[in-house]
Amino acid sequence: MAQPVSLKTSNAFDVERYREAMACHLDLGDPGSQLFFQALDYAQELHRGQVRKSGAPYISHPCAVAEILVKEMGILDPEMLAAAVLHDVIEDVPEVSFQSLERRFGSVVAELVDGCTKMTRSRKDRAALKDLTHSKILQTASRRLGVLVIKLADRLHNLRTLHYLSQPKRQRIAQETVEIYAPLAAKLNIFSLKRELYHLALSYLYPRKSKKILNTLKLLDTDEHVLEMEQRLRRAFEEAGLPVQIRRRVKGLGTYYDSGKKTLRLTNTENRVDFTIVVDTEDVRQCYFALGVVDTLFRPVPRTIRDFIANPKNNGYMSLHTRVHFRGENYLIKIRTQAMDQWARQGLLSQWRRSAQIDEAYLEEISDFLRTIGEYGGGGAQRRHLIQLSEAEEVTVYTPLGDAHVFPQGSIVLDFAYKIHSDLGNHCKGALVNGRFVRPTHVLSDGETVEILKAAERLDLDPDLESLCRTPKARSAINREVNRRRRDYAQWVGQEILRQELEHHGFPRNLITSEITRLILDVLNLKSVQDLFVQVGQDLVSPHLVLYYLLDATPRPVTQAKLKAQFDQDHPRNVLRVPALDPVIHKFAGCCHPFPGERGVVATLSERGITFHRGNCRDLSERHDLPSQRLMDVRWVKGATWTRPIYARLRIQTKDKAPLLHVIGSVPGDIEVCHVHGHFDRSGQWAVLDVVLRGFDDARRFFGAFPPASAALERYSFSALPDCC
Amino acid sequence: MAQPVSLKTSNAFDVERYREAMACHLDLGDPGSQLFFQALDYAQELHRGQVRKSGAPYISHPCAVAEILVKEMGILDPEMLAAAVLHDVIEDVPEVSFQSLERRFGSVVAELVDGCTKMTRSRKDRAALKDLTHSKILQTASRRLGVLVIKLADRLHNLRTLHYLSQPKRQRIAQETVEIYAPLAAKLNIFSLKRELYHLALSYLYPRKSKKILNTLKLLDTDEHVLEMEQRLRRAFEEAGLPVQIRRRVKGLGTYYDSGKKTLRLTNTENRVDFTIVVDTEDVRQCYFALGVVDTLFRPVPRTIRDFIANPKNNGYMSLHTRVHFRGENYLIKIRTQAMDQWARQGLLSQWRRSAQIDEAYLEEISDFLRTIGEYGGGGAQRRHLIQLSEAEEVTVYTPLGDAHVFPQGSIVLDFAYKIHSDLGNHCKGALVNGRFVRPTHVLSDGETVEILKAAERLDLDPDLESLCRTPKARSAINREVNRRRRDYAQWVGQEILRQELEHHGFPRNLITSEITRLILDVLNLKSVQDLFVQVGQDLVSPHLVLYYLLDATPRPVTQAKLKAQFDQDHPRNVLRVPALDPVIHKFAGCCHPFPGERGVVATLSERGITFHRGNCRDLSERHDLPSQRLMDVRWVKGATWTRPIYARLRIQTKDKAPLLHVIGSVPGDIEVCHVHGHFDRSGQWAVLDVVLRGFDDARRFFGAFPPASAALERYSFSALPDCC
Repeated sequence: MAQPVSLKTSNAFDVERYREAMACHLDLGDPGSQLFFQALDYAQELHRGQVRKSGAPYISHPCAVAEILVKEMGILDPEMLAAAVLHDVIEDVPEVSFQSLERRFGSVVAELVDGCTKMTRSRKDRAALKDLTHSKILQTASRRLGVLVIKLADRLHNLRTLHYLSQPKRQRIAQETVEIYAPLAAKLNIFSLKRELYHLALSYLYPRKSKKILNTLKLLDTDEHVLEMEQRLRRAFEEAGLPVQIRRRVKGLGTYYDSGKKTLRLTNTENRVDFTIVVDTEDVRQCYFALGVVDTLFRPVPRTIRDFIANPKNNGYMSLHTRVHFRGENYLIKIRTQAMDQWARQGLLSQWRRSAQIDEAYLEEISDFLRTIGEYGGGGAQRRHLIQLSEAEEVTVYTPLGDAHVFPQGSIVLDFAYKIHSDLGNHCKGALVNGRFVRPTHVLSDGETVEILKAAERLDLDPDLESLCRTPKARSAINREVNRRRRDYAQWVGQEILRQELEHHGFPRNLITSEITRLILDVLNLKSVQDLFVQVGQDLVSPHLVLYYLLDATPRPVTQAKLKAQFDQDHPRNVLRVPALDPVIHKFAGCCHPFPGERGVVATLSERGITFHRGNCRDLSERHDLPSQRLMDVRWVKGATWTRPIYARLRIQTKDKAPLLHVIGSVPGDIEVCHVHGHFDRSGQWAVLDVVLRGFDDARRFFGAFPPASAALERYSFSALPDCC
Repeated sequence: MAQPVSLKTSNAFDVERYREAMACHLDLGDPGSQLFFQALDYAQELHRGQVRKSGAPYISHPCAVAEILVKEMGILDPEMLAAAVLHDVIEDVPEVSFQSLERRFGSVVAELVDGCTKMTRSRKDRAALKDLTHSKILQTASRRLGVLVIKLADRLHNLRTLHYLSQPKRQRIAQETVEIYAPLAAKLNIFSLKRELYHLALSYLYPRKSKKILNTLKLLDTDEHVLEMEQRLRRAFEEAGLPVQIRRRVKGLGTYYDSGKKTLRLTNTENRVDFTIVVDTEDVRQCYFALGVVDTLFRPVPRTIRDFIANPKNNGYMSLHTRVHFRGENYLIKIRTQAMDQWARQGLLSQWRRSAQIDEAYLEEISDFLRTIGEYGGGGAQRRHLIQLSEAEEVTVYTPLGDAHVFPQGSIVLDFAYKIHSDLGNHCKGALVNGRFVRPTHVLSDGETVEILKAAERLDLDPDLESLCRTPKARSAINREVNRRRRDYAQWVGQEILRQELEHHGFPRNLITSEITRLILDVLNLKSVQDLFVQVGQDLVSPHLVLYYLLDATPRPVTQAKLKAQFDQDHPRNVLRVPALDPVIHKFAGCCHPFPGERGVVATLSERGITFHRGNCRDLSERHDLPSQRLMDVRWVKGATWTRPIYARLRIQTKDKAPLLHVIGSVPGDIEVCHVHGHFDRSGQWAVLDVVLRGFDDARRFFGAFPPASAALERYSFSALPDCC
């Protein structure tokens, strides 16, 4: 990847001087360190002639990344450094492959370099490619954590030299940093790296707000209250006879970032300045004594004392926290031993240096985290959200035996169930929380004792369930289950379509299951006829294409001309029979608001299930621009009642409240209305009506009672809800 | 008061032996202690011949109370003990008065005894008399705290001997204990007393549930987990080399009582067993060190560490709290020094013994608390609620200068404003909380910085505001303001009534303001003609009575016969003109649901303001049984708009939802509907409709749109709300 370098202000890059500088850090006697220099030579050769946007030779960039590893992260592992200088070769040099690197530098270096290599050889669009790359990095990092460390150093150097790039590219890189790399640095607990990544990226993304915040932060560093506090703390610890180091720190830009709203807040509601007190002993109980010194000196804000020593955070962070109030402002005071301090500042790196003596359980947790997010089968935005969730506050709950489990704040019973076992999650019917029954969506609170209840039947899925969960495990599992159901349905739909097409053109039904399909599967690169049905049912493969192939290979061939004539003529559309609704599969389009049971509804197919539109929907014909044959005519199975009542929500928006009240008043008397809610204000006047519908007949009468196309109702929508609020 | 005694199991009470027993505790050389024995002699003489329900001589009860003071509370103050043996003499012996006691035993003893004396000489009903007694005890206790201490010992003895009394009387005494005396013992922080009062009273009130709870509690005391925890704690402190005392305690019945719902819960959601760790030093920082020992031994439940050393509770309680989880159950561990421990167990008493060296600020706070609640002008239930609120959890907020203020949980901005100054409360228009504007009803949270904003005009009052506040100060102030407004309105109404009556009978208007009224005021024991208007306007004095007196004394007397004839004849009712509604004064009766602007509405008058009924209301004629002349005919002032829009809430209940939807659909189109909310379920189907009304014309059209008496609408009510939700 062509990124500029700015190790020197000029465009010249002196590899010899770089070699000498690195030699100072490495033990030249160690045969391992020769690996690095060999890699450097090889990389220099491969990148020869390549130039960065800044005009510097390309080799300057991987050299700088290796330098960051050595100087800023303290990593002296030769394989890591070799991989760092080689990290772009597979991506940028066509003749280099995983195999050739493996032969030359061994499998570890090859794996590290391969893990850092972007996905490019695919027909997907840019966003999908980027997501594939993230998925790959996370998965390889879950097996070999060094991939992520090199990637973070790479990203740090890219950000430091961002100014050579075009505005849109800067924007993309900065955005990706805030959404992916800075939270991952936080997950690895590499504090300084996280802070600088946020600082550089947010300064690019929100230049004005950043400047404003940074200006106040600069003043805070010499604020008289802050200095007074520091002095008083020093004096108190001297008097108490407890030797400590005291550091004050103005919080960085990252703490002003709201990842939910994707914005930089100008104020930080919690505290703007932290003090860190490091006690000069490894006796953790001295930290508590130090807490006493602090709390008797300043007034702590009630309920803010947190004991991350007894309950370390998921990323291994340990400290005592107390938030104190001093002259109208709150300050966070962190108390820790030196070992805790080292972990808090450098996290994983602090142990990396001691030749990979990293805590097994922690490493496993990290690896699990990275793999689950890497393997997640949902969209890129959801994957990014999962990474950001790892920065959330945490809650601790207990099993009935007293084992503690830590979850991101907002996690629900299902998160707990899936953490213990995926089968328990799939059959979770709720839990006993402190002895009281709660539903699977109950939000966990600190200190609750949770006993998961298992049902014989599978969990009732709905599309909102995934987003209610907060852990990668639960989200992945639910996503997998949702995809499985959509796939099963698509398979049935695809088979139906092909059956109808065959029938339509007067061919025998059994054609499709015959031996001939082998040929088609080969051509389409599919494994089974089931896969073929799924592709047709998701509108990824045209049924006509399948027919062409089928008939071409049939023992009683029809002439191509006849076939084409048949396809071209305006034959009736295929029919989708709908006997029941599944919120995971069926959606009602927001553009034309069809309703279940309505006449003239058509369906579009996709990987995400079925979407219903009105037959005359303008949005469908203009925006989606689908040929008529790719739609299906919907036949609601008459008299069919839904297996469980469907809660339908009708949301109506009008400028004038009178017709709205009229609508509410005209619901057929025998349809169960469980909830009416209307709110009228200047900005957007709307009402919500929740009704319980038990079948398509009910639905048709309910929605038929007031003409949805009425001019008075400017907007209305129908959605099938999993449950009544 | 005739209460049984059970110092001995027989009915005999040996005063001589009692005298000897008390002499062991008192310093007989001290002339002060002679005061006690003189008081004992005098009390014995006065109660001679009086016998308790148990058959014991009456003197045994006051003797037992004095004994509790000495033996259980450690109080040796002779004046307190003298007052204790004399505490029932003013109440039970007619010839003894405050003055006679003062002459004999001095003003302190007389004040103490008088403070303990019930209110009896009044025409009020029992509930009102009881509330007056509470008010008196609180007010005298605010000046002389000993009154409350004697009253608590008195109540403890009464409860211990409750079994001699009738069931209803037991019930009343136990209920009063739970609502008044146990919370007051908690406020004085006399832990053992509070625990026994709750235990005895709740055992009487909820015999079955108490037995169930006490049975489990008994098992807990020897529970293996509890014993294991205690052992592990002892070992940990031995290893740490920190000498401590460790006490375990199974929580009492009182912690299972829900004062809000007035019920005993069978489970305690927080913890059932406490451990108290008392460090053997007065260096408070050793408490924090001890916290380290505990937290590194057991896993604390996150966010449960509370530092009541740096932030003592309002009642002076100090300790470090941490809640730990051990094998599926939570345990509270309290850590404190010996001085804190003494205060935690005996509160005020621990300092009382050291010859009244009680902390001034704390004493002032207690005194303020007792006086404010004593002077509170609202109902008895509200007064009892105020006492119970003092047991609530607390929140701490800060002024912009950093001063901390502690409030009961749930307190609002108005509580803060009234705490600083009553004038600030009366003109509070909101506050800046952490720099953001909030309304006066904003609920305070821990750590918020609050800056009250003052308006030029007075606070907009509404009836709910008082109950939203959580502090006696704010509630009292609002109650006072509400009463003032009701009084002013009653004065205007009374004057109107008399004017109309005079006019009606053909007398000159100025009669009422003439000199003759003096006579009437004397007869009615009123201070001013304004007071007379108020009494008439609150329907406490009949206007006809006033007229009788007036005309009797008039220079142009009419014959009594003529006057009587005039009164007896069915003359038209007086008229109340209503140009505007004030939620503090005007109420719409729940029995007949009249609405503003409706024809044929009548008004009843009372100390709590005006209540509107329909003219044909059956409840009014049957239950209230008011003669027609005591009602007023209501004339809504036509076209009058309200000074600010009134939010009316229509609540409709029906068995069938169809008419309900119809009602919602039939609101006149030009009336502003801000909110429609309907909820239908099996238990009670109802809908709420909030509308904004700007005058009586709007109201008449709104309520006239659907016949409220319709059979379909089984229940509906109208209430004017201060504000839209």
